[in-house]
Amino acid sequence: MNGADLLCETLLANDIDVCFANPGTSEMHFVAALDRQPKMRCVLGLFEGVVTGAADGYARMADKPAATLLHLGPGLANGIANLHNARRAHTPMVNVVGDHATHHLAYDAPLTSDIESLARPVSHWLGRAERADLVGQRAEEAITAATRQPGQIATLILHADAAWNSTDRAVAKRAPRLAPTAPDGARVDTAARALRAGRQTTILVSGLALRERQLKLLDRLANATGARLMAQQANGRMQRGAGRPALDRVPYVIDQALATFRDTEQVILIGAKAPVGFFAYPGKPSSMLPEDCAVLELIEEGGDVVAAIEALAEAVGIGHVAAPRLAERYRPPLLSGRLTPEAMAIALAHHMPADAIVCDESVSSGRDFFRSTHGAEPHDFLQLTGGAIGIGLPLTTGAAVACPGRKVIGLQADGSGMYTVQALWTQAREALDVVTIVYANRRYQILHKELENVGAGAPGENARRMLDLDNPELDWVKIAGGMGVEAARADTAEGFETLLSAACRRKGPFLIEAVI
Amino acid sequence: MNGADLLCETLLANDIDVCFANPGTSEMHFVAALDRQPKMRCVLGLFEGVVTGAADGYARMADKPAATLLHLGPGLANGIANLHNARRAHTPMVNVVGDHATHHLAYDAPLTSDIESLARPVSHWLGRAERADLVGQRAEEAITAATRQPGQIATLILHADAAWNSTDRAVAKRAPRLAPTAPDGARVDTAARALRAGRQTTILVSGLALRERQLKLLDRLANATGARLMAQQANGRMQRGAGRPALDRVPYVIDQALATFRDTEQVILIGAKAPVGFFAYPGKPSSMLPEDCAVLELIEEGGDVVAAIEALAEAVGIGHVAAPRLAERYRPPLLSGRLTPEAMAIALAHHMPADAIVCDESVSSGRDFFRSTHGAEPHDFLQLTGGAIGIGLPLTTGAAVACPGRKVIGLQADGSGMYTVQALWTQAREALDVVTIVYANRRYQILHKELENVGAGAPGENARRMLDLDNPELDWVKIAGGMGVEAARADTAEGFETLLSAACRRKGPFLIEAVI
Repeated sequence: MNGADLLCETLLANDIDVCFANPGTSEMHFVAALDRQPKMRCVLGLFEGVVTGAADGYARMADKPAATLLHLGPGLANGIANLHNARRAHTPMVNVVGDHATHHLAYDAPLTSDIESLARPVSHWLGRAERADLVGQRAEEAITAATRQPGQIATLILHADAAWNSTDRAVAKRAPRLAPTAPDGARVDTAARALRAGRQTTILVSGLALRERQLKLLDRLANATGARLMAQQANGRMQRGAGRPALDRVPYVIDQALATFRDTEQVILIGAKAPVGFFAYPGKPSSMLPEDCAVLELIEEGGDVVAAIEALAEAVGIGHVAAPRLAERYRPPLLSGRLTPEAMAIALAHHMPADAIVCDESVSSGRDFFRSTHGAEPHDFLQLTGGAIGIGLPLTTGAAVACPGRKVIGLQADGSGMYTVQALWTQAREALDVVTIVYANRRYQILHKELENVGAGAPGENARRMLDLDNPELDWVKIAGGMGVEAARADTAEGFETLLSAACRRKGPFLIEAVI
Repeated sequence: MNGADLLCETLLANDIDVCFANPGTSEMHFVAALDRQPKMRCVLGLFEGVVTGAADGYARMADKPAATLLHLGPGLANGIANLHNARRAHTPMVNVVGDHATHHLAYDAPLTSDIESLARPVSHWLGRAERADLVGQRAEEAITAATRQPGQIATLILHADAAWNSTDRAVAKRAPRLAPTAPDGARVDTAARALRAGRQTTILVSGLALRERQLKLLDRLANATGARLMAQQANGRMQRGAGRPALDRVPYVIDQALATFRDTEQVILIGAKAPVGFFAYPGKPSSMLPEDCAVLELIEEGGDVVAAIEALAEAVGIGHVAAPRLAERYRPPLLSGRLTPEAMAIALAHHMPADAIVCDESVSSGRDFFRSTHGAEPHDFLQLTGGAIGIGLPLTTGAAVACPGRKVIGLQADGSGMYTVQALWTQAREALDVVTIVYANRRYQILHKELENVGAGAPGENARRMLDLDNPELDWVKIAGGMGVEAARADTAEGFETLLSAACRRKGPFLIEAVI
């Protein structure tokens, strides 16, 4: 058995049986090893941003890591933007990055680069397997790190000779799993006292707090104490829709975020971070909280969100609130005529099937979706968490690999969709049940707003050349067709609703270019 | 004047008047500044790999840097693979990477990341402008570094507040240029003595040695001494075709490279590196040279290639060789029937117009091109230098921006073409005179060969899933059409020749999907 085989077997022994990949020559022995393992599902992405974004979507839905296979420093670099997002989403992931044979590094061959320097900013754990004997141990360390709550990025650099040399340390083992830190009684008591103190309180949550069971408990807690329950601005995964508590998120737009917290006296964080501006603006604060607002963290990073919520509910005493307030199934009246993001959101509230998975990279155009779908069929909602655009199409791809029985719906801005457009091919290759909705406004709309905020006046030639996607207009129907995904265009509310309704009733990848 | 304006003016004062860009919110004040400068040509790429690859193609042909504008760590990360290639090509480049306002960094907003760690592996010079007062000085330092021979990558991190704050240090200056190191007399004498010693000698060249004038001198030198003149395996730019010396390159395939140097007793490097394997293989050496082969470097890095070649010719004495041996215009007989890379190469030898710029990312399929086109019309030949695929379409894009009067021809493998396929849109937007030829073999052909070399036997299910691009086949005509580039498909030698001939006679972007 060689090092590559041992790595495969160690992954499989740890229930990591999907590998999103774009390999190269230095990974060829690992490819050969994967080829000997039919239990491993290898999914090719035609660009590494697809690979890492799909691994993110997979893990968010499967609640376990996928592996990725990347080709040296440049292959890793292509995947970094979506690793950045995955890191912000606390997604578990095991990246295998090939490197030259150890003896070849000194020759500075063309593809040689400083992989550590590239990997460190997006990796919680980073290690090298320099010898075949070390591959099993390093892989276990990577898996232990990746599966540490709330989920971490582990990057294992696999030298070609560590892959091709044989080893007698050939026992693939289940890696130790680290239990999350138990709730800290003092933190729970402090939070419970704060909740009883009669101050204007927001309980700000993310992570596992956004699963149905925890949300129901948190809603009762909020109801019992008069606190406001709210989700972080961007979250890896959130369960919502009819039959679940309806939760608002912190707004993206800075003035709205500041207004949201204007009267807040204390914030209790559960798996969430204190709200800050996505960007800085001249004369505006970085923190969204009033200066004298108290911030309490119920758990530290790596803490047990589920147990902490239960402990807090116990400490506060919520027995008198027997049931949570749940959203009812609601279909806002359909709009007609001109196609707008609001009309699209309402059509989605009508047609999204139960248990859909919605991946949102609609940027500015999708802001109507959230408020229009509190009463849609229950669904999972996955967001762009790190602000690095180009996650949407890969995220739907990975979520669909994880959940073959569920409809995946991508809300996709056109500008960010182009970043990793290659993911459409993987959707076709794998026959994934994904409906991609492209908000085709032919511009980086969010940047037009930001340019306005800068006080630069009407955009001139150079600004328009950098912020507009017209001239030529992108034809998403052709682009999707070129990668094997059926597609159609809608430019009225009625046309969109008809296409969406049909797309939600069929299986397999489909794209709707919504001209707004 | 604010920091952003000062940066624009400093770039313009240094004759950097093209900016390949994909900006975001943190760069909005720089966008506004660019908008006030109609002298600056801003070219949008729909993905940062397009931006950096185009800046590379531009600089290789313009012999001066373009600026790039990238959005924080993730925007830079998306451009790293092509920065890696540019670094290996010794391309001058000035990257402007936006970052949060300095006071915002401590809040760890979603897009915050360690930009230095990402930038360092691909940057010869790396600096931050933390205050508006520093922007001019840092920009000058970056330009000085970028223009240092043989060309360097300079990365300037521009904080949002350094861009938006005003400064009274508002004098845009021409940055100092570092002269290349003069030839070292001792090195020249050693090389001259070696050339006269009657040993089997290869003069291995790259960089400015591959321009017509230097090549002619080098050919006379080789002719006078009996040495073999050869180009490095991959070169940023090489002038070739009829009326210029015909030069071979070191082969990519390791056994061929080893055979090339089997009898070589000494190698004289001029702007080139000693040849090493692109990858390591079990049981094969990393160096392509025999163990006892002497290696002489005529110049050190940063040395004056042009002056050193002249000094060497002088020291050796080549007066008795009055003229170089030049390739004659030659059109190999056209092939017919099945479309093959050889048939395509021959058609190119017929139809490429004089002064064409050929950008080669054909990977395995394009190996016929070189040998079939020694006698084609004179042209510049630009290669993938760092092995990071996804350079081809951006490179043609940038070369066409630099040389509006010349036909640019891209030799593009399908697998690597998909990496930065978004560049087609920029070609359409800018109405660039580019013919892209896609070698559509529907697979990572080079990796099939490598898998074979590994001894893995016939590829099984998982290997095929990672190495083949069929099921579904990519439809390049649709993909190009979706981005506004006219395209057509050829699957016979005659059909290809007809399309190529027409494409070479028209202006504007066109793509030929060559099904091989």
